[in-house]
Amino acid sequence: MVLKVYADRLSQPSRSVLLFCKVIGIDFEEIQVEVLKNQRFSPEYKAINPMSQVPAIVDGHLKLFESHAILIYLSCSFPGVANNWYPSDVSKRAKIHSVLDWHHSNLHRGSVGLILNTIMAPKGFPSSPQAAKEAEKILMKSLNKLETFWLKDGSFLVGSSKPSIADISLVCDIMQLQLLSDKDFDRILSPYKKVVEWIQDTISATAPHFHEVHGLLFKAQKRIRGQMATQTVSALSKI
Amino acid sequence: MVLKVYADRLSQPSRSVLLFCKVIGIDFEEIQVEVLKNQRFSPEYKAINPMSQVPAIVDGHLKLFESHAILIYLSCSFPGVANNWYPSDVSKRAKIHSVLDWHHSNLHRGSVGLILNTIMAPKGFPSSPQAAKEAEKILMKSLNKLETFWLKDGSFLVGSSKPSIADISLVCDIMQLQLLSDKDFDRILSPYKKVVEWIQDTISATAPHFHEVHGLLFKAQKRIRGQMATQTVSALSKI
Repeated sequence: MVLKVYADRLSQPSRSVLLFCKVIGIDFEEIQVEVLKNQRFSPEYKAINPMSQVPAIVDGHLKLFESHAILIYLSCSFPGVANNWYPSDVSKRAKIHSVLDWHHSNLHRGSVGLILNTIMAPKGFPSSPQAAKEAEKILMKSLNKLETFWLKDGSFLVGSSKPSIADISLVCDIMQLQLLSDKDFDRILSPYKKVVEWIQDTISATAPHFHEVHGLLFKAQKRIRGQMATQTVSALSKI
Repeated sequence: MVLKVYADRLSQPSRSVLLFCKVIGIDFEEIQVEVLKNQRFSPEYKAINPMSQVPAIVDGHLKLFESHAILIYLSCSFPGVANNWYPSDVSKRAKIHSVLDWHHSNLHRGSVGLILNTIMAPKGFPSSPQAAKEAEKILMKSLNKLETFWLKDGSFLVGSSKPSIADISLVCDIMQLQLLSDKDFDRILSPYKKVVEWIQDTISATAPHFHEVHGLLFKAQKRIRGQMATQTVSALSKI
């Protein structure tokens, strides 16, 4: 039976799993679970992931959620996955686990918190300006650690010359910031030259799949930025 | 060269690593990094863990932080570790990764947030009653998921009959709630019968090391609960 991937391309961990499947050439069926339509709370989806989050996979009898766990599982259970994605060397693998664990409470928490409390606030998510401010602080501190520590010894994370599942996971997360205004995106990212270069290197290393998997995000960006421009024009006309 | 473990026994992830080392009989040197004395910000410790958090290990040339990454590394790189701690079967291992990943943004976030914003507030940590309330909400939701999902199929997590590194990590985290008052501890834990039983099973499976590693926490509990009692008597005398 073919691998089933339950995902929403507007969710950053969903994109990381879809992107990895495409990069390593796994045959899979993508099943859309639209977060904004609350499809993740349906009884059918809850039977696959009782936490009601995306992504999740079903592979034979195995139901699995949490994107890092899925990326590791795919690396280990499908044949022919190149060693750079999830190195077999125990020390190199330990470093990959370390950055993936760090990701949870730092970069991911910052980026999700900022987007939920700004861009997604009108969609009915619980939000507050204070939470947005705190999330941005976590995000900036995380980007600084990426620049000064995680990327200090190589083109990719933890001193690697080739990308791993950690690069895919973290870059897909940062891409969510594309939903912010042009000005905010530049203000947040531009101080971090190595981070910006690493994003480009990861995009190149996973081409052409990266752009395909992020197509829906860029459509959403266009719509959101268009609404922002309309609101600005409307506000200016009242001056 | 012997494994070095940098830890503070008042920190729950530190205890999980120390406990695991003792349970599997690894020869190691414990180096105390006292969080309340800000020793984690010293240049010497930052050279080991630039994130200034405990625990961290040094094993030969490898410097490693993030407790889950350390537990996995120890399971894989020291000989004779029984298979139940970190199963070699790819699907069972995937489930261990899944619960460890879930832990970061759920149980750990809730328990740390609650303790920092209540008990630790007088120690100068940034805190707020609103943050304490939100953390307790995350904690209660997480305990419910432990009771109804993660512990539904066995005595230990993800349907196992023997403990894994995930049981050690999560139980050490829950133990931090011992710093609350007796009343609050009971209010939070007592609705979750399976969770309470699983904590006892994990303590038994790791005896006598569990109590030894948690000795300092129980000393802190005694001091904190003593102060609470004095404050109550003092407040009552003013009525």
